[in-house]
Amino acid sequence: MSKAPHLTFDLHEYGVSRGHLVVPGGADRGELSLPVFSLNRGEGPRLLVTGGNHGNELEGPIVARRIIDWLAEAQTCGRVIVLPVLNPLAVQAWSRNTPLDGLNLNRVFPGRADGSVTERIADAVSRVLLPMADTVFDLHSFGPTWHFPPAATTHPIADLDLMARTVRMAEAFNLPLTLVWQHNDTAGMFDITAQNEGKVFVCTEFGGGTVGADNLAIYEAGVRNALMALGLVDGKAECPTFRQQKSTQTLETRPSDELKSPAPGIFEPRCSVLDEVKQGDLVGVLHPMDSLSTESIDIRAPGPSIVLGIRSGAHVDVNEAVALVARPLKL
Amino acid sequence: MSKAPHLTFDLHEYGVSRGHLVVPGGADRGELSLPVFSLNRGEGPRLLVTGGNHGNELEGPIVARRIIDWLAEAQTCGRVIVLPVLNPLAVQAWSRNTPLDGLNLNRVFPGRADGSVTERIADAVSRVLLPMADTVFDLHSFGPTWHFPPAATTHPIADLDLMARTVRMAEAFNLPLTLVWQHNDTAGMFDITAQNEGKVFVCTEFGGGTVGADNLAIYEAGVRNALMALGLVDGKAECPTFRQQKSTQTLETRPSDELKSPAPGIFEPRCSVLDEVKQGDLVGVLHPMDSLSTESIDIRAPGPSIVLGIRSGAHVDVNEAVALVARPLKL
Repeated sequence: MSKAPHLTFDLHEYGVSRGHLVVPGGADRGELSLPVFSLNRGEGPRLLVTGGNHGNELEGPIVARRIIDWLAEAQTCGRVIVLPVLNPLAVQAWSRNTPLDGLNLNRVFPGRADGSVTERIADAVSRVLLPMADTVFDLHSFGPTWHFPPAATTHPIADLDLMARTVRMAEAFNLPLTLVWQHNDTAGMFDITAQNEGKVFVCTEFGGGTVGADNLAIYEAGVRNALMALGLVDGKAECPTFRQQKSTQTLETRPSDELKSPAPGIFEPRCSVLDEVKQGDLVGVLHPMDSLSTESIDIRAPGPSIVLGIRSGAHVDVNEAVALVARPLKL
Repeated sequence: MSKAPHLTFDLHEYGVSRGHLVVPGGADRGELSLPVFSLNRGEGPRLLVTGGNHGNELEGPIVARRIIDWLAEAQTCGRVIVLPVLNPLAVQAWSRNTPLDGLNLNRVFPGRADGSVTERIADAVSRVLLPMADTVFDLHSFGPTWHFPPAATTHPIADLDLMARTVRMAEAFNLPLTLVWQHNDTAGMFDITAQNEGKVFVCTEFGGGTVGADNLAIYEAGVRNALMALGLVDGKAECPTFRQQKSTQTLETRPSDELKSPAPGIFEPRCSVLDEVKQGDLVGVLHPMDSLSTESIDIRAPGPSIVLGIRSGAHVDVNEAVALVARPLKL
């Protein structure tokens, strides 16, 4: 029978360690070895940084690699564990879900030791790495068919003290957007598992679309700011420039803030992320594909709000989300 | 047996017509009806505009729809036919190729009447629409895992007079980049079929990545400029702003200008499209995924050149293209 998930090195060793998190094999495939970096500088905060949860969101793995190089020189105390690629099978396929079992890693936490490979990855992370951290940063990108501003996000948390600490941690990234995101599809998410154990968990949603040199600089600055705020590194936070502006805001969004497509067709965005819109402003246009005699359909803002995310020109079905709007957070 | 491909309306009718290009059914599926717009204002240039050749490049269909609305007011002479979506099956799947037969529409021209659905689309376009035009604009976007500047492109053409006229037409888009692109995988491309019939064919590569409101404005301005240069519409060309600059340049690139990945891993772009690089400048970094003890590998410019396209953070295999560079065109 398969062994238990384990690390190939001792996390308690002082200084830099590099090795692997071994995810045991199962009926569907043999064992997986996920590269892990650890830097132990003794007493202080205990942080876990993960990327590559979804395989078509590659800012996270790249920023994680950059942070590893920087930490080796900059970290002054505490312990940081970095796992740049949670799901190498999905990354190799540039796919949100794992091709082998079709599962979304971020919906199967805390995982199952006797499950399929995606569930075994979640189980290994939950059992071996999560107990070693008080704070978790999971680096996402919102996927390739949306525009989304650089953001540090959390879902609402029932424990109000943990909620307040999580929002403060998210704001410390100093990114253009801090977001409290209420949605109905949170079962099995990594953050829910971590929060149930009392940990501060921030999910960064770094842009959507594709990885570019300009955006990577913003993402890395955000993670560095958060590491400084935790006290792991000395330094002064910077405020990255996004769309020619240096600004930050804290917003909230709910399921009712999703704008849906009124028909199947090609969605044309008519505004950009972080644009302020008034009731009736044009957000996008839906072009039916079956006839050029059918009028295109305007999609307008239902009320004063800020455009949070917008579909980047995909073909959509009727009732599929094409934009998300948000409002200033009231805690 | 199936009928011949045909239009549901008479292209010679004066004024605006809207209808369909009917692609006959075959063994794999029934007939397809592709929406077509036509505006006949009598004597003058005869232009065909197509989009949606590749299903995950949706700037083309959107810009085509915008141009239709504009032409109805602005066109003063000649005939314009617009087919916003060449391959609706690929567009619905947000897929480069047609899911049903796995074929790339832009590699099966001039098509086959008794072939699979992708070949039948090419056949219908080649036989019914292409003979009606002297000039063709096919609106692409370079696909979602590359950054690419707004560009009007052609391949080298053996007929030097047609080549000169094609480059002049491409330059009339007034986009940041006009490109003569030599590559070895041109068999079955739409432009080769059109050029063999003596037509001026310009392929626009509008950005790569995802559709945004800012980029769509650039794309639409480019197509409007070209329609004005043809004399179909009155007006003065504008020079769109891209990356905070208003500039245009004409470049050429060859297969030897492709930079390849030295190993499998995640590619990190370190420069942006249209950046000028000197020999040895860092273009990107390749991060192997199997170990954090393996050094990341720098990918550097082989000589002085301009970055034409760059992979936007995908996982790549060894020897896969990660960047394209170019040099000023010498005709």
